[in-house]
Amino acid sequence: MRMYDLIMKKRNGGALTKEEIFYMINEYTNGNIPDYQMSAFMMAVYFKGMTEEETVNLTMAMAESGDMMDLSSIDGLKADKHSTGGVGDKISLVLGPMVAALGVPVAKMSGRGLGHTGGTIDKLESFPGFSTSLTTEKFIENVNRIKIAIAGQTANLAPADKKLYALRDVTATVDNISLIASSIMSKKLASGSDAIVLDVKTGNGAFMKTEADAVALAREMVQIGTGAGRNTVAIISDMNQPLGFAVGNALEVKEAIDTLKGEGPADLLELAVVLGTYMLLGVKRFTDEEKARAALYKTIEDGSALKKLEEFVEAQGGNPEAVRNQDLLPKASIVMEIKAQEDGFVEKIETDEIGVVSLILGGGRETKESDIDLSVGVVIKKKIGDAVEKGETVAVLHGNDLKKMEQAKERFMAAYTFSKSPVTRDALVKWIISDKGTKKY
Amino acid sequence: MRMYDLIMKKRNGGALTKEEIFYMINEYTNGNIPDYQMSAFMMAVYFKGMTEEETVNLTMAMAESGDMMDLSSIDGLKADKHSTGGVGDKISLVLGPMVAALGVPVAKMSGRGLGHTGGTIDKLESFPGFSTSLTTEKFIENVNRIKIAIAGQTANLAPADKKLYALRDVTATVDNISLIASSIMSKKLASGSDAIVLDVKTGNGAFMKTEADAVALAREMVQIGTGAGRNTVAIISDMNQPLGFAVGNALEVKEAIDTLKGEGPADLLELAVVLGTYMLLGVKRFTDEEKARAALYKTIEDGSALKKLEEFVEAQGGNPEAVRNQDLLPKASIVMEIKAQEDGFVEKIETDEIGVVSLILGGGRETKESDIDLSVGVVIKKKIGDAVEKGETVAVLHGNDLKKMEQAKERFMAAYTFSKSPVTRDALVKWIISDKGTKKY
Repeated sequence: MRMYDLIMKKRNGGALTKEEIFYMINEYTNGNIPDYQMSAFMMAVYFKGMTEEETVNLTMAMAESGDMMDLSSIDGLKADKHSTGGVGDKISLVLGPMVAALGVPVAKMSGRGLGHTGGTIDKLESFPGFSTSLTTEKFIENVNRIKIAIAGQTANLAPADKKLYALRDVTATVDNISLIASSIMSKKLASGSDAIVLDVKTGNGAFMKTEADAVALAREMVQIGTGAGRNTVAIISDMNQPLGFAVGNALEVKEAIDTLKGEGPADLLELAVVLGTYMLLGVKRFTDEEKARAALYKTIEDGSALKKLEEFVEAQGGNPEAVRNQDLLPKASIVMEIKAQEDGFVEKIETDEIGVVSLILGGGRETKESDIDLSVGVVIKKKIGDAVEKGETVAVLHGNDLKKMEQAKERFMAAYTFSKSPVTRDALVKWIISDKGTKKY
Repeated sequence: MRMYDLIMKKRNGGALTKEEIFYMINEYTNGNIPDYQMSAFMMAVYFKGMTEEETVNLTMAMAESGDMMDLSSIDGLKADKHSTGGVGDKISLVLGPMVAALGVPVAKMSGRGLGHTGGTIDKLESFPGFSTSLTTEKFIENVNRIKIAIAGQTANLAPADKKLYALRDVTATVDNISLIASSIMSKKLASGSDAIVLDVKTGNGAFMKTEADAVALAREMVQIGTGAGRNTVAIISDMNQPLGFAVGNALEVKEAIDTLKGEGPADLLELAVVLGTYMLLGVKRFTDEEKARAALYKTIEDGSALKKLEEFVEAQGGNPEAVRNQDLLPKASIVMEIKAQEDGFVEKIETDEIGVVSLILGGGRETKESDIDLSVGVVIKKKIGDAVEKGETVAVLHGNDLKKMEQAKERFMAAYTFSKSPVTRDALVKWIISDKGTKKY
C-alpha cells in the first residue's frame, strides 16, 4: 500500500477501505507517512468529503492509535458528556455532580482550553489544591467510591488525532464536518464511556455558526458513536449569547456552585437537566424522560448535588470549604461596572467578543504556553430580550490590570446591540439527534 | 503575510496577487514555508485552478527563484524549442543544426531524460568525447562563433520549480494544466531565449493523451510566454506512434544524421521544418512562412545543416568523424528481427509500450541514478497504415543481453495491432497556437 495511491484515490472522489484508513493513520502516527502527503490528503478530503463508513473508520483508527481507557472495573454503565465549546460554558461543573448524585458513574477526561477561557480542568483548579493528574488506579477508585472523577487527558490519548489536528490547523483543513466529527469522537471513544451525550452549540459564539452546520456535525458524531457501539445522543443548543452570566474561570465556578444551590441562572440549570436526562437514559438509569428530569431537579432541591461537588473536590485534593465559602476562590482586585447609555432592550450580543473580553482580561490562553489568571472575567447582567434602563449595570468586569480593563470595556460595549422595541429570545435547546433521527426539542 | 491565509484564499476559490505568489515561492525556496503547507496549497489549486494572471506570476516567480541566463552578449534574437516529450523524439538533433545553419543563434539548455530513453544530452553523449558541461563564457562564445550550443541545465535553474515538482510528484498534484505549464515555462523563461517554440505532443505516447488536453496546455504556455514578453508559439503534434523509426540513444543520433543527409524519415524532417519555421519567424529572420520553409529545406539539400552538426560536435569536444562514419557511434552487440505473423495493415501502436521496450533493453532510466546503455533500442520498420506481409520485418531490436531482448520482444509484439483492411493515418501536425488564437494546421 502506498500513501500516494490513497491521495490519488481520494482526489478522484473514491472511498478508502477500512484497511487503507488504518494503514494511513498508523503509518502517519509512526512517522512513516510525511506531513506533506497527509496535508494533501486532508485538502482532498476537504473537497471530496468522506462517506459515513470512512468517517467511522477514521475515528476508530485515531481512537486506537494510543491508549484505550479500560473502564470495565467501574461498576455499571458509564456516561460522558462533550460540548463543542462556547462562551460561559461551565456545564460540566453542574452536570457532573448532579448525575453522580444519582449514583451514575461519571468518568470524565477533560482538556485545558485554548481560547477565551480555560477548559474544565483550568476552572476546577480554582479550588485551592485541586489536581486532575490522577493515576488510572486512583481515577477508577474515585469513580467507584464517589461516582465522579475528572482527569486531564493522558498524553497518549488518540495521538493520531493530536498530530493530525495540529497539521490541519496550519493547512486550512479544519472546517470539514467529517474531520471535526472524527477528531472529537476519537477522543470520546478512547475515553471508554458507554453512553455519550454531545452538546453541539450553534450561534455567533460557537464553532458552528449556523444551525444547519451544527445539525450536520451532530449527525456525523451520532453516526460515529452509534457505529462504534456507544449509545450516543446529541442536542443542539443556543450559543448566540453566553450560557449563564459568568465568563471567566473562578467566576464560572462560583456560578456553578450557585446553580447547585438552586440560586443560579435558569438557562444553565435547564441545559444541565436536558443533558443529564440523556445521560441517565443512555446508561438505562431511567427509561422515562420525565422521571429522569424530576430526579435531576431533586438533586438540587435536596442538596445532594452540592454535597457531591464537595466530595468530588475533596477527593481530588481540593479544599471543599471553598464550595460553601466562596471567599476561598481566586478573586480579582478590581471591579468595574459597565452602565447602559440609554433605555432599550438587548437585541444582539456578539458572543465571541464577550469571550475576547475575558481573554483580554487574562482569563484565556493565546498559545499553549500562556498562563491563565483564574480570577478575572466578566459577569453580564443583561441577556437578549432583557429591558435596560439608562444608567443600569449591563455587566461587571473583574480584573487585575486597569489598562487591560479599559481595553476590555471598550470591546464589551461594541459587542452589545440594543433595540427600542421588545425583542424575543431564541429557544435554548433546539434539536435532539439520535440514531432514530433528528427531532425538534 | 502568512501562508495559512494564502491556502485558505485558494481553498475558497480566490485568486492570489502577484505579491502573494512571489512571497510564497520565495519563502518556499528558502525553506521558510514547509512542504506540508505547500502540498495543501497545491491540492487546493488542483480543485480550484489558477487564473491566467496567477499562472503567469507563478511562472515568473519560479523562473526568478534562481539564475536567470543573460544571453544579451549573443548577437541577434535567440530561439529555443521545447517538446513535452514523446517516444523517438530526436528533433533537437535535427532542428538545432538546421536553424543554426541559417545564422540564427540556438542557445539551448537541456535535461537528461527520466523515462524510456535519455534526454537530448544523453543522446549527444553518443558522440565520443562530447560534453554539455560548458561554462557560461564558453557557451556564449560557441553560440556567437558557430550559432549553436547545448548545455546541461545548471543546478540553480528555477530551483523553486525543482523543489515544487518533487513535492507534487509525491502528493498527486502533478496533473493540473496550469501547474504543468508554469513548471515547463519557468525553465524556458530562465533560459533566456527571445522566441520560444513549443512542441506539445498528444496521443498514447504523450503526457497529454487527448487533443483537448494538449491544446489546453499549449494555450496556457503560450499565454505565459506572451505574458512574460517572449514571442511564443505552440504546435500540437501527433504521438500515437514514435517519431521517425528509431527509439534509443545512439540509434536516434544515427537517424538524425540520416535526416540531415536527406535520407531520414519524412515525418521527422517535416516536424523539424514546421518547428524551425516558427523559430525563424519568432526571431524575425523571415516574415514569410513559405520562404522560411524553403530556407530550411535548403540547409539539407546544400549540406550546410550536416556541416553545422559536425562543427557543433567538435565545438563541444566530440569527435566530428562520427557524423560521417557511424561506426564510431556506440553499437549494440546483438540484433534481433521481429517478423509479422500474418498479412495486414498496422492499425495501432501502443507508443508508451515501445518506449518500455527501449527501457527494458537498457536505453532509459528508471531512477535518477540509473546508468543508460547508449547503444541499445528498437528501430521500427512499419508505422500506422503500412501494409505488412507475413514474415516481413516489423522491427529490429538492438541489445546487449539476450534475456532482456526476449522480454522486450514479447512486450513489443503486444504493442502492435494489425487490421485486415487498409488504415488511414492521422495528421502529424494538428494545431498551431499563438497569441492570435488556435488554428488548424
